[in-house]
Amino acid sequence: MSSIDGEMVIDCHGHYTTVPQEHATWSTRLKEALEAGEQAPPYPAMSDEEIRDSIESNQLKMIRDRGIDVVLLSPRASAMVHHVANAEFSVGWAQACNDIVARVCDLFPGVFFGVCQLPQTPQITNRNAVVELERCVSDLGFVGCNLNPDPSGGRWNSPPLTDSSWYPLYEKLIELDVPVMVHPSASRTAALHSTGAHYINADTAVFMQLISGDVFDEFPSLRVIIPHGGGAVPYHWGRYRGLAASLGRESLSEHVRSNIYFDTCVYHQEGMELLFRTVECDQLLFGSEMIGAVRGVDPLSGHHYDDTKRYVDALALPREQRQKVLWQNACEVYSRLGARLRGGESAESRP
Amino acid sequence: MSSIDGEMVIDCHGHYTTVPQEHATWSTRLKEALEAGEQAPPYPAMSDEEIRDSIESNQLKMIRDRGIDVVLLSPRASAMVHHVANAEFSVGWAQACNDIVARVCDLFPGVFFGVCQLPQTPQITNRNAVVELERCVSDLGFVGCNLNPDPSGGRWNSPPLTDSSWYPLYEKLIELDVPVMVHPSASRTAALHSTGAHYINADTAVFMQLISGDVFDEFPSLRVIIPHGGGAVPYHWGRYRGLAASLGRESLSEHVRSNIYFDTCVYHQEGMELLFRTVECDQLLFGSEMIGAVRGVDPLSGHHYDDTKRYVDALALPREQRQKVLWQNACEVYSRLGARLRGGESAESRP
Repeated sequence: MSSIDGEMVIDCHGHYTTVPQEHATWSTRLKEALEAGEQAPPYPAMSDEEIRDSIESNQLKMIRDRGIDVVLLSPRASAMVHHVANAEFSVGWAQACNDIVARVCDLFPGVFFGVCQLPQTPQITNRNAVVELERCVSDLGFVGCNLNPDPSGGRWNSPPLTDSSWYPLYEKLIELDVPVMVHPSASRTAALHSTGAHYINADTAVFMQLISGDVFDEFPSLRVIIPHGGGAVPYHWGRYRGLAASLGRESLSEHVRSNIYFDTCVYHQEGMELLFRTVECDQLLFGSEMIGAVRGVDPLSGHHYDDTKRYVDALALPREQRQKVLWQNACEVYSRLGARLRGGESAESRP
Repeated sequence: MSSIDGEMVIDCHGHYTTVPQEHATWSTRLKEALEAGEQAPPYPAMSDEEIRDSIESNQLKMIRDRGIDVVLLSPRASAMVHHVANAEFSVGWAQACNDIVARVCDLFPGVFFGVCQLPQTPQITNRNAVVELERCVSDLGFVGCNLNPDPSGGRWNSPPLTDSSWYPLYEKLIELDVPVMVHPSASRTAALHSTGAHYINADTAVFMQLISGDVFDEFPSLRVIIPHGGGAVPYHWGRYRGLAASLGRESLSEHVRSNIYFDTCVYHQEGMELLFRTVECDQLLFGSEMIGAVRGVDPLSGHHYDDTKRYVDALALPREQRQKVLWQNACEVYSRLGARLRGGESAESRP
């Protein structure tokens, strides 16, 4: 295990997708109970061993195989389903999802750090999200959150992230000094495949929202991670430079420098090369989206599609750039993570 | 001017965005009249000179500057607004837009060839689209059409393009032997910037729709052009290969080989290089989306962002590949264009 002084690998984009079945089943029972006007059903008891088993043979095995030291773990994104049921469901379900992620973090200290799901609901203000964010960061020790820019699941009827209705959430993010990763949940429409279209499209849409508005003038320390390699943005970097210029931004790179970051969830070498040729290393955080959208082994390489570290390794980056992307940027952007790792919290200090 | 035997440059993606103002104004009057239960207002008279002027100092000047010989010209995409008003509006407006494109093609024979807008309406079957497609191809000599995969303008409430409700349109496309470019219109939601998000997202969404279904088994000769360099797809080619594998497709390249094409509307060199490294030349059609989304001059290069021929030129492709991308593929995919160019129709034969 590497230390904070040497090389280290932090995966900023991990989802707990191998959660015990009782947890997933409970969400259906919660929804049914609330719809019937009944009280929430009791949350199922799960032993530490059951949770440990769900991780050890999956996420933990994978990260050890790949040489990853630390994972920022958030609840399964497709299961957030902010468009289902109502605000009460969303609060109860987010709490349960975040609590079980917190148990994983407690069971594997120094390896998993929590990133929370927010209890969002379409066209409802973000008060519930602010409360849950505070609970997760202050009580559970989480280091960031995932924000769904389209809680409707594909209808895109929420205001853009530059709208002031989002500001209370940004104020809390800044007060707590945590960043936000933009991440939708499952699509509710057959026209938008969740992991093959809606996720990537949300990345692209949010980048365009953010360069169209002045939210970073209002919140200069707001830090937004756009996952999946920034959606379509690096591939269309010229288009975005041109659009930014037409909006009066002198330099797109300058505009996003201190506020927008992309992860490295791009599943082929050519794509990864484009990302690094287009976006400065200071803006990039290593990530794999594991265990997530694409779980197979690429017959062309013999390795998992989402083993993104191999593509980064193959870039043969200068050491300084490599360190930034693999862990230093993550420690800065997720400043609470950085503080804890600098404080000596690591897998080596596990009891 | 080059000939069909030598080098030639066909831009498969041009929009008539410099149309005389009376045309645009008429759409508002048409909408208001229909809403008031009145008859459609008379379409404004425009002289040939007025139309010629709108092209000569814009599109024609640009293509001559850039060394483009032929443009597939379609109505302004953002103005199709299939979500506005009702089916009657959509029919009247599409006819007017296609008629004025036809006038441009007649005024500049051998240079502009028509691609039609379809009178679509959210959640309405495609009968009107079939009728207008037939009119444009059979009566006006058009060589292709643009299909909006989301006539709602961002709500994504139409079935995916693999749904059988689209089949009557595909049957007509095949009967007429014309291809279809997938192209949305303006977004109706502030969350989705039209040219910076909705267009690119539609490309990505449709590619995922098409690899999820079996529409090409049903319609083996259906030819679909996905514009804007394929949206996010080439950048995330590994993701799509992995998703295709999980859907039981042995080879993504094989699956799309005879049916899906991308244009080259990518506005920086690195992006263009990725496109050509990822997608076979047989699948690529030169395009610029001109005069369109990004009209400025890139201060880094001193040339227009959308002068895509410069990026293709800089690839220094082998002659055979270059010819395919610059014109041969377009002549095959838009087979009616190919037949007319082989028949000697060119700007040189202008009266």
